[in-house]
Amino acid sequence: MRAAIYNGPHSIEVGERPDPVIAAPNDAIVRVVLSCVCGSDLWYYRGESPHDLGAIGHEFIGVVEQVGPDVRGVAQGDFVIAPFIYCDGICPHCLAGVTSQCVHGGGFGNHGIDGGQGEAVRVPLAGSTLVRVPGSGYSDETMRSLLALSDVMCTGHHAAVSAGVRPGSVVAVVGDGAVGLCGVLAARRLGAARIIALSRNPSRQAVAREFGATDILAERGDAAISAVLEMTNGVGVDASLECVGTGQSVATALAITRPGSMVGMVGVPHGVEASIAETIVFRNVGLRGGVAPARAYIPELLGEVLDGSINPGRVFDFETDLDHVAEAYKAMDERRAIKSLIRVGKVARR
Amino acid sequence: MRAAIYNGPHSIEVGERPDPVIAAPNDAIVRVVLSCVCGSDLWYYRGESPHDLGAIGHEFIGVVEQVGPDVRGVAQGDFVIAPFIYCDGICPHCLAGVTSQCVHGGGFGNHGIDGGQGEAVRVPLAGSTLVRVPGSGYSDETMRSLLALSDVMCTGHHAAVSAGVRPGSVVAVVGDGAVGLCGVLAARRLGAARIIALSRNPSRQAVAREFGATDILAERGDAAISAVLEMTNGVGVDASLECVGTGQSVATALAITRPGSMVGMVGVPHGVEASIAETIVFRNVGLRGGVAPARAYIPELLGEVLDGSINPGRVFDFETDLDHVAEAYKAMDERRAIKSLIRVGKVARR
Repeated sequence: MRAAIYNGPHSIEVGERPDPVIAAPNDAIVRVVLSCVCGSDLWYYRGESPHDLGAIGHEFIGVVEQVGPDVRGVAQGDFVIAPFIYCDGICPHCLAGVTSQCVHGGGFGNHGIDGGQGEAVRVPLAGSTLVRVPGSGYSDETMRSLLALSDVMCTGHHAAVSAGVRPGSVVAVVGDGAVGLCGVLAARRLGAARIIALSRNPSRQAVAREFGATDILAERGDAAISAVLEMTNGVGVDASLECVGTGQSVATALAITRPGSMVGMVGVPHGVEASIAETIVFRNVGLRGGVAPARAYIPELLGEVLDGSINPGRVFDFETDLDHVAEAYKAMDERRAIKSLIRVGKVARR
Repeated sequence: MRAAIYNGPHSIEVGERPDPVIAAPNDAIVRVVLSCVCGSDLWYYRGESPHDLGAIGHEFIGVVEQVGPDVRGVAQGDFVIAPFIYCDGICPHCLAGVTSQCVHGGGFGNHGIDGGQGEAVRVPLAGSTLVRVPGSGYSDETMRSLLALSDVMCTGHHAAVSAGVRPGSVVAVVGDGAVGLCGVLAARRLGAARIIALSRNPSRQAVAREFGATDILAERGDAAISAVLEMTNGVGVDASLECVGTGQSVATALAITRPGSMVGMVGVPHGVEASIAETIVFRNVGLRGGVAPARAYIPELLGEVLDGSINPGRVFDFETDLDHVAEAYKAMDERRAIKSLIRVGKVARR
């Protein structure tokens, strides 16, 4: 089959990979329809995090082509969303809702597991991992939003849940990437009264406003901290969503959050300073978040995508096909795109 | 008046300080009955944190000797507990229950404010800070527990609340100092089903058991992590209380807490590593805590001290008088004492 191949930093191209086969009784083979590039893929692309050579990509939706003998809950022909981490659904962490820490789980697109940026994927633990989408004949707009449930919208939701966003909350979102924008949408869903989005990019500001941001701040660093404190009469926000992962963004999020409240952190940390422990203690601000349990969140969000009340697929502002996967990465790396969608296959009818 | 004087690292002695006078309409003068030494005082004593020369100490109970014209809620002759941070009770942080971050607040025993380790203290914002203790004629045991409400028991409680301890929780307490021991007691109060105390000191282990620890672990570092994971079938505890503040203790607490749960951190951070951000994210464990809002907690805990259902004063295992304040510090510095009590005055009758 054809798939994106990671050859090392700044080198991703389409190539040949072995056709996936059922290797364990709980496996399924999914024929990919839509895939996309994650902000975390850019860390690999830029050589800032290690990645195995070979398969890459962990966000995809598609059609089940074949299932192993022990798979229950999904069947051949089903249209499914793959959460970006597979899970057994029965370990203590899955039962506690933290499917992203499944003791038998793992991620797609690295360490010998097929990537989502390819024609087909062997999905381990398929029955407890894949989420079947009811119905058929979805519009392209809905399809894009279903793809967003594979990771980015669940990750934004995880930031908002971790930060403790409640009806009436005043919220700040640090980061205007696709995760941050989905964080804005998630905060709105959870009833935030005011959502301050930190963004200096006009096209991202527009999506933030569409998703529910009430205020846009172009400032960064100390200037952003001063501005948010001024907007909140010196108190700080009730919850902040940290969707970048750098030292500056974490420091900003901790500084603008009112004492007794939480920072929901989903940015992959790079260069975060040791002094955050002091901030946590001396400002009475908490930090919680991590890898989103997408499998646990998808059922809650799926209905709202299908009835059109949320449209997270709006974060995709660049698209191409598998042959041009390198362009998908370049557009994001050069910040020409918020998030790149890759059209791989068609939805087959059962 | 006579008071403890901080002359620099390893040098604390009794000396003369000006008698406190009412300087603002909200001030009160409190004649100190009991005071004590905090684990955080040891950081100053050891020269590991800066401290102004002069007054020191921030935990005390005593009798109101005089009040300014605007003081409401406490009056001359009242027996009171002083939470270790004074507060106005009406700022946004106080109203949210985070009195330790009061915008007009501050601490005792540093930066020109009288210390609790002395015969009398000028208490700013006295009406909203001091907590009146009803009744009189308390036993020495009760008096010691009332003193513990000034800081150490509230700080242990804050660790337990921040960690989200609930009825049935499996809890680990990292640190067997007075705060950690009070954390054990606080976790028991909140209904923890199992409390694992990390301690290798027999006298501290005994207090931990008395306070409700169900398991004692003498291991530290990686050995402690392995032991807790083994005790919890590899899952980790539902909540952990970090009551030390070193890099190793924070790392241990984060490593033994199950994904989706919280570390309640009240240790003053010293040498905590930058990698904690990665742990928070990649293990889905949160960190929250900080300076305890003692003023907000005291009313909840006071009744239980007065009816004898909790006895946090058991952490005091060394006592002396103001003349021998240097001994109080030495006993703790040399780890001969869990926590040193200082007898300063008598409870006067109104």
